[in-house]
Amino acid sequence: MSKPSIPKGTRDFAPDVMARRQWMLGVIRSGMERHGFVPIETPAMENLSTLTGKYGDEGDQLIFKILNNGDYLSGVEVGPWESRDSKAVLPQISKKALRYDLTVPFARFVVMERHRLAMPFRRYQIQNVWRGDRPGRGRYQEFTQCDADIIGSEDPVCEWDLLLLFHEVLQALGVQGYEIVVNDRRVLAGLAEVWGIADRLTAWTVAMDKLDKVGPEGVLQELADRGFGAEVCGRVGEMLAAVTGRDAHARLAWLADVCGPAGEAGRNEVAWLLSRCAAAGLGSEHLVFDPTLARGLNYYTGAIFEVRVPGAPVGSICGGGRYADLTGIFGMPGLSGVGISFGADRIYDVLEHQGGFPPTAVAGPALLLFRLEEQDLDLQLQRLQAARAAGISAVLYPDVSKLKKQLKFASDTGVRHVLFQGEPERLAGQVAMKDMVSGTQWLLPEDGWLAALLEQRAAV
Amino acid sequence: MSKPSIPKGTRDFAPDVMARRQWMLGVIRSGMERHGFVPIETPAMENLSTLTGKYGDEGDQLIFKILNNGDYLSGVEVGPWESRDSKAVLPQISKKALRYDLTVPFARFVVMERHRLAMPFRRYQIQNVWRGDRPGRGRYQEFTQCDADIIGSEDPVCEWDLLLLFHEVLQALGVQGYEIVVNDRRVLAGLAEVWGIADRLTAWTVAMDKLDKVGPEGVLQELADRGFGAEVCGRVGEMLAAVTGRDAHARLAWLADVCGPAGEAGRNEVAWLLSRCAAAGLGSEHLVFDPTLARGLNYYTGAIFEVRVPGAPVGSICGGGRYADLTGIFGMPGLSGVGISFGADRIYDVLEHQGGFPPTAVAGPALLLFRLEEQDLDLQLQRLQAARAAGISAVLYPDVSKLKKQLKFASDTGVRHVLFQGEPERLAGQVAMKDMVSGTQWLLPEDGWLAALLEQRAAV
Repeated sequence: MSKPSIPKGTRDFAPDVMARRQWMLGVIRSGMERHGFVPIETPAMENLSTLTGKYGDEGDQLIFKILNNGDYLSGVEVGPWESRDSKAVLPQISKKALRYDLTVPFARFVVMERHRLAMPFRRYQIQNVWRGDRPGRGRYQEFTQCDADIIGSEDPVCEWDLLLLFHEVLQALGVQGYEIVVNDRRVLAGLAEVWGIADRLTAWTVAMDKLDKVGPEGVLQELADRGFGAEVCGRVGEMLAAVTGRDAHARLAWLADVCGPAGEAGRNEVAWLLSRCAAAGLGSEHLVFDPTLARGLNYYTGAIFEVRVPGAPVGSICGGGRYADLTGIFGMPGLSGVGISFGADRIYDVLEHQGGFPPTAVAGPALLLFRLEEQDLDLQLQRLQAARAAGISAVLYPDVSKLKKQLKFASDTGVRHVLFQGEPERLAGQVAMKDMVSGTQWLLPEDGWLAALLEQRAAV
Repeated sequence: MSKPSIPKGTRDFAPDVMARRQWMLGVIRSGMERHGFVPIETPAMENLSTLTGKYGDEGDQLIFKILNNGDYLSGVEVGPWESRDSKAVLPQISKKALRYDLTVPFARFVVMERHRLAMPFRRYQIQNVWRGDRPGRGRYQEFTQCDADIIGSEDPVCEWDLLLLFHEVLQALGVQGYEIVVNDRRVLAGLAEVWGIADRLTAWTVAMDKLDKVGPEGVLQELADRGFGAEVCGRVGEMLAAVTGRDAHARLAWLADVCGPAGEAGRNEVAWLLSRCAAAGLGSEHLVFDPTLARGLNYYTGAIFEVRVPGAPVGSICGGGRYADLTGIFGMPGLSGVGISFGADRIYDVLEHQGGFPPTAVAGPALLLFRLEEQDLDLQLQRLQAARAAGISAVLYPDVSKLKKQLKFASDTGVRHVLFQGEPERLAGQVAMKDMVSGTQWLLPEDGWLAALLEQRAAV
């Protein structure tokens, strides 16, 4: 028999990792709920037609398709079969696929449920998504997204609300040194307009999106490679030089100077957001206006967000933005929304890198009861029940065996307290309790150990 | 554009359903943690070879297979291709499949992690599974399993622990009238031995497993159809008649009489479990010994469990049992374990049928702040932050609009309290708060509304 394994790019989560993930996801969920978002879940499997064409050609390639059940080849037409063309055969043998993100399923959900949803609708969704990306450091084929969206309102108060949600959650998680970066697609469109490249906005922003990785020189090289003229490259170069530093007002002033009325609505909203966020405690230490921020997805139409942790071993840990027409792809045009996504797996990596998980985020029972003598079983079962009824996670070592073996098990599982009663303790009407961390051991009256344990735990 | 839809047998969970599911899963999780189980998660996608051959031929058919990414047809050999045989082509175009249950992935996990796990190992796992079953009432292609297993101990204290876990969780959920049914495979094997059908144990138990659905007559008919002789059918009929009623001791006595030493170990363990459970508060009101309980899965070797709710619109809601050798399929023989599974979707249906969800299991914010005047924005944002900082889930209506419209929104979203300040309140230095359920309205000083709201909420 071959050694069992799991597919590349997927992971088992052992109890220690699970405890930290549960704590982290709980903090994110609790922040979202405090902001009035309500949960939904959508199926792992969507109709293939729901997903294809939504993520570009490259995205379509990365969607995991599910083979039809049964004799899936029986319905394949002769033409595609004889062509032996994977693309032509695909729709004949697969009707379902795995969710690729949470945004498209959310848009589909809104369209299907539109008569039952009060608008504006605020939903959160914490589920896994699957992508056939080449596995690598921090890149998995199954990972967890945590999305919060407000749909059905164009008011920038929604953006303010989401920026504060980023801030509150990242504060509660204890992430060090994060930067919430904002920009506005209209600011970028304004620059493109005055530079005469409005028709090539996407090509320009795609090149600029790589600024973090390749630097200003790299961006200019890529623009030249993409056929942008020397004049445009010169202007982009000026811009990249002008917007260094973190003074948002200087950046806005430079843009106003260069663009005039073009992009003014975007600049005004950025200025409004910066001032309202500062008033709410989210100032320039954590909130940065960066007019070079582009975000790859082209459904964004207004504000765009990204959260970075300079020096951390991953790229951006969160993202988001406003979209004027997400549900249009499902036949319900004109519904504006804004959303953000927490990348749980990357936030986990950052917290691990920073040593940021709280010592309480551990798995496993708090109390282990030993079994030293056959005859003590009934008493130990009663004690086990009493501890659990008091809310303490407790287990009984299932076999009668040597004290040393049971102590080793306690140490291996990381349990904090153990309780036992050997012959000497039994004859004295006492039980022994030991704190495995401090090594302290107590002899307690048989009816007093639970109160003593609760007191110990409250003091820890 | 065609109307969006989701695959048959899958579901979207809207916020009201999600709130009840989260409450229910929280109760199950908390019970498992109190019993000292630690969480793991495994990937949705397993290697196809990990799953095939583990669930019988029918199960293999129901596993969802994932198509290889890229030009998946390029590697198909000529032979299978020309045969146009779905089974022969399958391994050439699919290497991964969706998890079908949590038991096989758990066995794989234990084998892969065996050097890091302290035995006995108690794990819980709450994740979705996927099966290509024909969708129907209470039968979904994606559903949630909640499993708890103890592996690495043969002590019946483990069975006791799991029976009490059933009981505590079902009590905490408020499920009415549940019956935890126990039997032991060795009891069934003992009967088969004395009846001379030991070599046909599986066929007999598969027929008897249908007792609930087809009644004693149906079982006897099926046995005859499967070629069991009149003598065996007669004895099975005697047994079915003898074990009516709920007196476990009478049933055990009848079995001892018929079987003698055959199956004695199983009967002893059943008797031991019944008495220890009764001492722990799980008596015959909720715990039933039923020697006709068979359970379909043939990896069970000792105790078997099932939880039923007579009169509820679903079949069994939980199941489980002891297996002597689950990890043997992955090359690690001889590790005995026992596990149970809560069927979350069926428990949900039972709770809905019984009206058993608590009124607190609702989604959505507790407080809505209205926007009546442009000028009140900054003040309302401050109030919003203050409410959230006090732990209250709160939202601001994002647009300035008519009071009536915002009241309707409050009512549609089910928010309990609303806060607003029109011109009259503003001039008087007051804010108005309304309880949307009772209709009560208060005029409060601007600095006193939060304390009043917290007081109201504490009183609810």
